Amino acid sequence: MKTIRLGLIGFGTVGAGMVKILSQTNFLIERRLGAAVKLVKIADLDIKSDRGVPVARNVLTTQADELLDHPEIDIVVELIGGLEPARSFILKALANGKHVVTANKALLAKHGDEIFSAVEDKKLCLGYEASVGGAIPIIRSLRESFAATRFKSIGGIVNGTANYILSQMSDSGRDFDTALKEAQDKGFAEADPTFDIEGTDSAHKVAILTRLAYGTGVNFDDIYTEGISGITSEDIQYAGDFGYRIKLLAISKMDGEAIDVRVHPAMIPADKPLANVGGVLNAVWVGDEWMEENILVGHGAGALPTGCAVLGDVVEIGRNILSGACGRVPPLAFQRSAIKDIAIKNISDIECEYFLRLRVADQPGVLSIISGILGEHSISIKSVIQKDRDLDGNGVPLVLMTHKAQEKNIQEALLKINRQEVVCRETHLIRVENGS
Amino acid sequence: MKTIRLGLIGFGTVGAGMVKILSQTNFLIERRLGAAVKLVKIADLDIKSDRGVPVARNVLTTQADELLDHPEIDIVVELIGGLEPARSFILKALANGKHVVTANKALLAKHGDEIFSAVEDKKLCLGYEASVGGAIPIIRSLRESFAATRFKSIGGIVNGTANYILSQMSDSGRDFDTALKEAQDKGFAEADPTFDIEGTDSAHKVAILTRLAYGTGVNFDDIYTEGISGITSEDIQYAGDFGYRIKLLAISKMDGEAIDVRVHPAMIPADKPLANVGGVLNAVWVGDEWMEENILVGHGAGALPTGCAVLGDVVEIGRNILSGACGRVPPLAFQRSAIKDIAIKNISDIECEYFLRLRVADQPGVLSIISGILGEHSISIKSVIQKDRDLDGNGVPLVLMTHKAQEKNIQEALLKINRQEVVCRETHLIRVENGS
Repeated sequence: MKTIRLGLIGFGTVGAGMVKILSQTNFLIERRLGAAVKLVKIADLDIKSDRGVPVARNVLTTQADELLDHPEIDIVVELIGGLEPARSFILKALANGKHVVTANKALLAKHGDEIFSAVEDKKLCLGYEASVGGAIPIIRSLRESFAATRFKSIGGIVNGTANYILSQMSDSGRDFDTALKEAQDKGFAEADPTFDIEGTDSAHKVAILTRLAYGTGVNFDDIYTEGISGITSEDIQYAGDFGYRIKLLAISKMDGEAIDVRVHPAMIPADKPLANVGGVLNAVWVGDEWMEENILVGHGAGALPTGCAVLGDVVEIGRNILSGACGRVPPLAFQRSAIKDIAIKNISDIECEYFLRLRVADQPGVLSIISGILGEHSISIKSVIQKDRDLDGNGVPLVLMTHKAQEKNIQEALLKINRQEVVCRETHLIRVENGS
Repeated sequence: MKTIRLGLIGFGTVGAGMVKILSQTNFLIERRLGAAVKLVKIADLDIKSDRGVPVARNVLTTQADELLDHPEIDIVVELIGGLEPARSFILKALANGKHVVTANKALLAKHGDEIFSAVEDKKLCLGYEASVGGAIPIIRSLRESFAATRFKSIGGIVNGTANYILSQMSDSGRDFDTALKEAQDKGFAEADPTFDIEGTDSAHKVAILTRLAYGTGVNFDDIYTEGISGITSEDIQYAGDFGYRIKLLAISKMDGEAIDVRVHPAMIPADKPLANVGGVLNAVWVGDEWMEENILVGHGAGALPTGCAVLGDVVEIGRNILSGACGRVPPLAFQRSAIKDIAIKNISDIECEYFLRLRVADQPGVLSIISGILGEHSISIKSVIQKDRDLDGNGVPLVLMTHKAQEKNIQEALLKINRQEVVCRETHLIRVENGS
């Protein structure tokens, strides 16, 4: 029986998950692939700690080069994450004629062009299913299943940490800090959760989805990114009052000649499927004019779901190797010559409905001042809630939902509103989305 | 630029949908595939009716052979459905060295082995993404993305007609006949809806999913199949009272040495994702021990979603042709020599919870008789509802939910219960499932 030989760089949580799965499903992979998959080398700085998975001593090395230069290794699996040295390792693997599987969304979002070019130059394969949505088969679906599709929009809930925190705030009334602490205690959030809660991780993922869906380059810094650390229990509660839930959304909508790509917390109608994707689950929607809508839901992170996605890529590349079809699908699913740069819309040019939470003086005429300013900026109000009376002299919450308006008008109106004497605090804005 | 040449057999709804999409996305397919896709011939008995899509006169023929023997056609797309002449057309296409794309679930469920063998013998490609779940990318996910997965269960809501009818009964309180009529008026149900409402179509689909997930042959007649025509408004209402929704489920669970494959209406807890997949939507869950759960939701039927899935297969095969990798993935994702027949469990050997709706005499002691018989058969009751009094002499409804029990015990108990004098009508049983 033929053998596909793997080298793994990064023996952390996901690496160990992949090794565990491989040790138990190798026989199944053989039945499907018609070849054995053998893990020849694992490189990690720490080769002493017990990962709870069976690994022969001579498989471990602290030297990535031992693996990158190994003459027998067909596929290098990169699971260390981050930009460097991951980027250099992958480029060296490709230069040495090895196929690559990676879960590294940050690297692909920022240095994708360099890596995709190297893959195409060498007619090699790059698997990155695990970079977005864990075991959710969104990358392969975009590359293959939807190859005849003219996408109108793609996006979803692509960060499990943020979704867990928002779900806990929503289901149990916890405040942000408590929910974050709990997520950290349960291992759903890292010690430094910045990338997850500030939306950076979601932005990495939506950059990858945008490239694949529309066949365009993406300048990562053009993606408007806003996290969930400003979301309060009050926001969650008002969202509920208005019939919405708050989710951290990654959005990529084709809008004529530009793409509307952004990451921010959004209010989604409570009866929409995405509003009901809770806990650490992820969900990706894919919208086009013909198949209407597809939503894929699953575990977007974790050692075993991610390990499954990595091994799915290993089998795909193994099949390409065995049938002499490396480079069968270009890394971005589009022919290199057919990739066209499409501009990303500036956030100030988008249009949506808005939720505004103000803290205002408890006196007559306040609503008239606020609605007057909104009106001057062509913004109409859809509904208003003003619940409490001012008991502590800190003003009262005034909560508004607007009809569809231009972001630039909203921002200008808010500047003016926040300067009013009757407005006690900076106004909080949350965009409203349909979740598809 | 290279050209991939298609022949289409069957210019009905889905065929016309595919032609429409192709006419509008050909440029996009070229950008992805790096080759043009050209529809060379369309065979249909009716070549006169206007399908509202642009087709050159000389493309149409009433003779399928003109297409099957056409020397330039690379891929034959079969969209006539049914067993014959679809089977003969596909076998002839394969014999003539043409790749095949089909949406024909009935044919694959019943004559899959013959067709899969012919595909492998000739090292050709067979695309059948459109046979299950329309545009939901479940077939490709099973063949590729989840290639390292040891499945524990797969199934879902795979018939949009039945789901529409049950959703209407549930949301608007309609009875079965009214909901069916409405589905027919809206084009969601055929004039003869038997296959959809009696579960046959779902059984075809679960047969295909079972083969793919576990790498086994499936004797279609071994699949227990029960439709929704026996579901009444009362059932829907009681389901709601107990916190459930009724869905027509296709189930395939690996249970030790046998597979539990069945199609029947099932009560699903209302807060489970599958319970909330309404209207004509389909949803397929895929469960394993590592990635926990994936659910794919989308439009499972209709000209355009199905047309998208067909064209996705066309592009996949086009890529195989262009890279010389036909036969890259075996039709069932498993190597032919690795397919092992696994037995299908007899329905009497399954275990689940049950909902029982009885019509009994309105007199004391009835519950004691019923629960006594259930107890004799090792069935414990979880909850009981007995709402009304007997006003018309036809007895009163008595509704029970059981704890987990053996189907064979339930069936024996029901035989005995139905013979009791206090039982006015045959008892109605609905199985309870978690929806994953």
